[in-house]
Amino acid sequence: MEATYRALCKHGYAELTMQDIAAESDKSKGTLHYHFEGKQDLLESFLEFLLDRFEERTQTISGETPAERLHEFLEELLTPADEESAEEFRTAILEIKAQAPYNEVYQEKLGAFDRALRERIATLVADGLKAGEFRADIDPDETADFLVTLFHGAQTRAAAVDRPPKRTRQYVHEYIDETLRPDGAVGEDAPTTDGDSEAGE
Amino acid sequence: MEATYRALCKHGYAELTMQDIAAESDKSKGTLHYHFEGKQDLLESFLEFLLDRFEERTQTISGETPAERLHEFLEELLTPADEESAEEFRTAILEIKAQAPYNEVYQEKLGAFDRALRERIATLVADGLKAGEFRADIDPDETADFLVTLFHGAQTRAAAVDRPPKRTRQYVHEYIDETLRPDGAVGEDAPTTDGDSEAGE
Repeated sequence: MEATYRALCKHGYAELTMQDIAAESDKSKGTLHYHFEGKQDLLESFLEFLLDRFEERTQTISGETPAERLHEFLEELLTPADEESAEEFRTAILEIKAQAPYNEVYQEKLGAFDRALRERIATLVADGLKAGEFRADIDPDETADFLVTLFHGAQTRAAAVDRPPKRTRQYVHEYIDETLRPDGAVGEDAPTTDGDSEAGE
Repeated sequence: MEATYRALCKHGYAELTMQDIAAESDKSKGTLHYHFEGKQDLLESFLEFLLDRFEERTQTISGETPAERLHEFLEELLTPADEESAEEFRTAILEIKAQAPYNEVYQEKLGAFDRALRERIATLVADGLKAGEFRADIDPDETADFLVTLFHGAQTRAAAVDRPPKRTRQYVHEYIDETLRPDGAVGEDAPTTDGDSEAGE
């Protein structure tokens, strides 16, 4: 799976071959073919591996309150695990997303990831509601859905038009503090905004 | 360009050939090759055509106030021009976005579209600020950037995991009324929310 990650970053999805993946590992192409029918089959397992790894990475989220944990979770989600190959990996995943309408298993695995994200976020929002940290009229499921859409947008935009996903991180934190929290209840966990806002005064 | 649209919807981006495009038009493949070097060259022109068409379609936006026009503009942006082929077209555009990191001209054309969107939205937000319709601390450029990210997210999610972009339309309208407007100043132009919210009460 680590070899698949490296090969995807190096070659992109469309050009990727089993040989490329074998070259990144200590296995032969024959061994890979013994375990996987082909590139698609291997990548289906790879998508599952990504979800498992993400769930592991985010199982323990620091933060004293649900709102702080929501900030932390989204920060984690929008920060690549490996900064160096972040761009290449983002592009490869976007290629796989664009293949999903032609490949039921990709769509299913990506759907599982999407669902896992929504559920985690919705739980954090619901916890925050119970703790009185968020506005009482917030709907956890809708809020989670909104934030997951924003996450997809940040990834796509970064690949397609080279917009840094960093800015989205900032917006997401602002969204939590300005839209989800009751007025005037901005927590200290909010990161400082250092945008170069010239307009809007 | 209309033939390219139909051929893209029918075959997707990866499989598309000049022959497929010729088959949808009254031109021969030879004639197409006289005007365009190949599929990439033709699609570069197609992306330009899409931007022009979008700008035409949104030149006149109805609405009495800037906030109403912002609602209307985003409604238009998130509603496919052709509902019937919307899904296929969205997938084809996502494939092209995923190709952008490998193709400078695609990235440039997609970037121009992205920029045009941001500028239009920022202008509408700035107009709303001047009219006192939005909170004084809103930054038009950042708000526009946020909304464009959300737009990309809606398109990607609809293709990759089959989430209807309709829900994003609803969130965007809520965002305008709940986050951009000063508290308690929700306009009558806000569409009614009919989400099936079971939680969060």
